[in-house]
Amino acid sequence: MNLAMRKGIYTALTALACAWTAMTSAQALTEQELVTLDTLKQTSLSSDLSYNIIESLTTEVGNRMMGTPGDAKSIVWAVDKMKSLGFDKVWTEEVTKAQWIRGEVSASIVSPYPQKMVAIALGGSVGTGEKGIEAEVVHFENLAALKEAEKGSLDGKIAFVSYRMERHIDGHGYGKAVGTRVTGAAVAAEKGAIALIMRSVGTDDNRIAHTGIMRYKDGVKKIPAAALSNPDADLLVNQLKRGKAVTVALNMSSEIQSDVQVKSANVVGEFTGSELPEQIVSLGAHLDSWDVGTGALDDGLGIGMVMAAAHHIGQLPERPKRTIRVILFAAEEVGLLGAKKYVELHKDNMSNHVIGAEWDFGLGPIYKMSVGVGAESLNAMREFAQLITPLGVALAPKNKARAQSDMGALSDAGMPSVNFSPDGSRYFDYHHTENDTFDKINPADLKQNTAVYTMFAYFTAQANTDFRK
Amino acid sequence: MNLAMRKGIYTALTALACAWTAMTSAQALTEQELVTLDTLKQTSLSSDLSYNIIESLTTEVGNRMMGTPGDAKSIVWAVDKMKSLGFDKVWTEEVTKAQWIRGEVSASIVSPYPQKMVAIALGGSVGTGEKGIEAEVVHFENLAALKEAEKGSLDGKIAFVSYRMERHIDGHGYGKAVGTRVTGAAVAAEKGAIALIMRSVGTDDNRIAHTGIMRYKDGVKKIPAAALSNPDADLLVNQLKRGKAVTVALNMSSEIQSDVQVKSANVVGEFTGSELPEQIVSLGAHLDSWDVGTGALDDGLGIGMVMAAAHHIGQLPERPKRTIRVILFAAEEVGLLGAKKYVELHKDNMSNHVIGAEWDFGLGPIYKMSVGVGAESLNAMREFAQLITPLGVALAPKNKARAQSDMGALSDAGMPSVNFSPDGSRYFDYHHTENDTFDKINPADLKQNTAVYTMFAYFTAQANTDFRK
Repeated sequence: MNLAMRKGIYTALTALACAWTAMTSAQALTEQELVTLDTLKQTSLSSDLSYNIIESLTTEVGNRMMGTPGDAKSIVWAVDKMKSLGFDKVWTEEVTKAQWIRGEVSASIVSPYPQKMVAIALGGSVGTGEKGIEAEVVHFENLAALKEAEKGSLDGKIAFVSYRMERHIDGHGYGKAVGTRVTGAAVAAEKGAIALIMRSVGTDDNRIAHTGIMRYKDGVKKIPAAALSNPDADLLVNQLKRGKAVTVALNMSSEIQSDVQVKSANVVGEFTGSELPEQIVSLGAHLDSWDVGTGALDDGLGIGMVMAAAHHIGQLPERPKRTIRVILFAAEEVGLLGAKKYVELHKDNMSNHVIGAEWDFGLGPIYKMSVGVGAESLNAMREFAQLITPLGVALAPKNKARAQSDMGALSDAGMPSVNFSPDGSRYFDYHHTENDTFDKINPADLKQNTAVYTMFAYFTAQANTDFRK
Repeated sequence: MNLAMRKGIYTALTALACAWTAMTSAQALTEQELVTLDTLKQTSLSSDLSYNIIESLTTEVGNRMMGTPGDAKSIVWAVDKMKSLGFDKVWTEEVTKAQWIRGEVSASIVSPYPQKMVAIALGGSVGTGEKGIEAEVVHFENLAALKEAEKGSLDGKIAFVSYRMERHIDGHGYGKAVGTRVTGAAVAAEKGAIALIMRSVGTDDNRIAHTGIMRYKDGVKKIPAAALSNPDADLLVNQLKRGKAVTVALNMSSEIQSDVQVKSANVVGEFTGSELPEQIVSLGAHLDSWDVGTGALDDGLGIGMVMAAAHHIGQLPERPKRTIRVILFAAEEVGLLGAKKYVELHKDNMSNHVIGAEWDFGLGPIYKMSVGVGAESLNAMREFAQLITPLGVALAPKNKARAQSDMGALSDAGMPSVNFSPDGSRYFDYHHTENDTFDKINPADLKQNTAVYTMFAYFTAQANTDFRK
């Protein structure tokens, strides 16, 4: 291809792009609305609001697992914060569940070479009893290998799964690793094991273990389950490599208190629409965190950006046409209880939830948008995609997105959905650990994130389209 | 400058370099010795021995602070390992000191916003007593600011120094930061403080605090001293920023047991020289570590490479002319006690220590060699520098090097010395923490390190020069 040919193609493409923009922008937003959108973009990119909200949450509240004092404090904090940010309405929606107590954990190699290990109880695990457990370890490289073990082959033993999570920009290594955490204890117990220990589901090399929810299986004995830090899993593997029996001691005072109900609440706030107030654009994040770290990334990031996005729009001289609702879901980590409650409470009004998105993953700039909307409204989403292209966001080709995390329950109930994919390469270095703290947040990335959410909320609140069609 | 000119200059430079090499290599090593040196280089670059030695130490012994079971185990391990590696002689040299017990530590912000913090007792600190300490925090940005505080201004308060260590390839940020750790408690006590808390001397962002030795001052009250992890120091600073009084609770059961003497030992091994056995080339590292992590970097790396270097040379058909002595010093972390003992025991033979080098810093490829030798022997060291240039090592211009760490005591006693500077950019992410574990070691870098040490040991054991002249 010569230079003239290239130039010709470039000119043709530019003309096409301009024509496309003219055609689509005419459909969804007016010229004046596009100007407003650009103002909102500039505001988001220059404002520290989302960063300051996360600083406030992590400094004044800290971690906030359902049932802990931090969770109760976070509800008060969120209500106060929304009010101070000028939300038109703010309310809470109560959820309850049985109490789980983390307690203390200690894990060590007893023989052949005694060494302490850094471990953490998986969320929802039973404890070991006061005397603890001391038993030989049987090593499995992954969950599939554990599943293949003969019934009874682990009688009196501790099962150890050493599978290492892979690092990927979209975090898909998590899906491949998390099965052991969720189901491993039940699988090990079926084979006769008296405890499960596993390499943390995490991509870091820190002596800090990753917690996260686990589940038992009806009719199968509940055995204690803990995760080791990556370096400790390496140490255990290295001791096992020597071919001698390896004995591990595990002591966990974790406890499921089935008879103690604890309360939490979704905190919901909105800027009420000026023309179509009954139609709701939902921005989601979850208010709870694990009881380690300060929940800065999971999900402080989401909280900061959806609150700031709504506030920036709320500062406009006029409310947008549709209502912008921020839902800070309760109890995501312990089973998406807030999301289930929300769908239950709002089931008769679900058809008015015109579109929604949640942030509950990642720690970097958004690079992709995926949509799940009606075929007719796809043009409007393409127009929006063009508007956020300068921020480095590309539109994914498929129109099948289910909103992530809590908001997925609303997608399942029929809500058109959008997912914004940020760079998640480093997210699982910190996820569900003591290391999930404010210093990990990059203010520049957060500004980009907030700009995308702000633009999304304004665009969809204003767009002349029905996202279900 | 045109191409012909450039070519001319290049040709002249090449000729000069060749002349230089011919002249200098004729002085120090024979052609046959240079061939042997190249074989040793290839052996070191292809061997996993140093890596495997560190794996053995960290897996089978783990951490080894003087006075702990790990320290006693490490002495047995080192003697056995040297014997199995074929050292001609292996012996130990006992050192003693008063026992120090780390105990347990807990630190938390009590008000205005209660949160737990990750802290670690500084080495040698007293405890708080069983009831612990709860007091208002007074914030200083660095040690200089603490020194400027009025006497009595900290009565009943906890002094908090938030200075953050800088990251540099040569680790010089450590020198600027470590003063608070070593002297901060005494300075704070002179102002009336009842405890010192400080940001860890470390460059990481992990919720893991860095320990390290501290010292009291005669006639000044001994107050407890602890380091906070970097994210926790940030949290405390953020709470202080709000202008309200911040109260911290500190509980440490650390204890100096002046009446309990504990023992350790230098472990020394050598390959005895064939022609000048009384003349000693010393390779140093320290055997002890802090009682956290597994001492993989500090100083497992040094242990692995000096043992492997000596072994590679010991595998040659003939012993080199001079003796190659590996000294694994005891009790470096708690005050260089092994080095002091070594110089005391060998003071009458110090003039036979012809040259030495220690590895006790860094975590990457060696990029620089600094020498401190007699003026005449400088040519020999320049010849050696040319031999390691292909490994990426440059010779520093000054001829004033004092060996680092323990080996500095031998330099001070007159031993000619060499320092190899590795990339230390990431060293203080892990230094003196739970995170100092085997997985942090890069096998490729370690091979380069080991090759340099092996070549250095052979060259100096064989060189036709007197490094004191």
